[in-house]
Amino acid sequence: MQMLLEKLNWRYATKKMDPARPVAADKVERILEAARLAPTSSGLQPFQVIVVTNPQVKEKLKAAGFGQAQLTDASHVLVFAAWDNYTEERIDGVLEQTNAERGGPNEGLDAYYARLKGMYLPRDAQTNFEHAARQAYIGFGMAIAQAAFEGVDATPMEGFEPEKFDEILGLGAKGLRSVCILPLGYRGEGDWLAPLKKVRRPKDKFVTEIA
Amino acid sequence: MQMLLEKLNWRYATKKMDPARPVAADKVERILEAARLAPTSSGLQPFQVIVVTNPQVKEKLKAAGFGQAQLTDASHVLVFAAWDNYTEERIDGVLEQTNAERGGPNEGLDAYYARLKGMYLPRDAQTNFEHAARQAYIGFGMAIAQAAFEGVDATPMEGFEPEKFDEILGLGAKGLRSVCILPLGYRGEGDWLAPLKKVRRPKDKFVTEIA
Repeated sequence: MQMLLEKLNWRYATKKMDPARPVAADKVERILEAARLAPTSSGLQPFQVIVVTNPQVKEKLKAAGFGQAQLTDASHVLVFAAWDNYTEERIDGVLEQTNAERGGPNEGLDAYYARLKGMYLPRDAQTNFEHAARQAYIGFGMAIAQAAFEGVDATPMEGFEPEKFDEILGLGAKGLRSVCILPLGYRGEGDWLAPLKKVRRPKDKFVTEIA
Repeated sequence: MQMLLEKLNWRYATKKMDPARPVAADKVERILEAARLAPTSSGLQPFQVIVVTNPQVKEKLKAAGFGQAQLTDASHVLVFAAWDNYTEERIDGVLEQTNAERGGPNEGLDAYYARLKGMYLPRDAQTNFEHAARQAYIGFGMAIAQAAFEGVDATPMEGFEPEKFDEILGLGAKGLRSVCILPLGYRGEGDWLAPLKKVRRPKDKFVTEIA
């Protein structure tokens, strides 16, 4: 029962990856699968994951990531990119897939997504993007957790220039905006953060009980 | 290695909880611990979790949650509340705790958090709140995952009125804003969603590889 907690205690934001140790494809598959299985608001899954292994592209990402070495030393760089807006087409796509997989149209579900469109479509794009970005962070968390289960080191990062990432990866044309990234690899010798104590706010300042 | 994936496939957004089956305290502790161990940007952990078990308070939350029965049928309602803004005091608090636990001041860390304050403090409160809310969603995801490891049913929810929740729980005075909630309990008989297939976007529409 404590296995996830053990994995969360094991992991840390790896600052130095060993460039000679790539992550095996099956491990990357399961890390992506955890992100794909993550729950999201109304089941919309309003994000995608770009997996970058191309060395030239990783070099460009590093330049747009303040030169941080994980971006080239990691064998895989996962870029979580949220929908830039909610659209009728995107929401209808989710409804259609759900109906198809659950054996045909359902009046209740149709009404639910009609209400959702009534709420989301009139809102400004930035509000919808922020909502989509939050969902991406649930999947981001699941990928971080699964990496730990795989014994794979990972670096959850926001320290990069999202507009430049979007440009390098051609995300704008797909209606996506990068929000957070996760280089995957194995810790290298002499990572300054590796030996340091993990620090978290004590429970009594993190949890309030109303009993 | 596939254990987290199995748990993510097992879980679903429980729509009907059995009010006669409360969740044991040690399970709730570990679910909260997963949220506390979640990584966050610059280690700030800019959120708290409010655990509501009081029946009268749960009734009020249900009224502010469109009458959804999980809010009273669940034995525990976890409310994830993000910082309404980044402040010097909050960031200094994280730095001081980190220094204390890692054996004294560190020039590099001092400089890092000084840069962070230079970036965050001039920004408007809403931008900072949105950033804090994203971090809360990582912890939210970890709590959802740990609930599944505990065999506890949970309902990740955004369908509630955050301003009313903030009022009921007195969050405004603490500089917090509710962003998402997680009732914990056990599925009741006849939950309409329980037998339905879990639907997720297929991998080829979720992942793009740049090799």
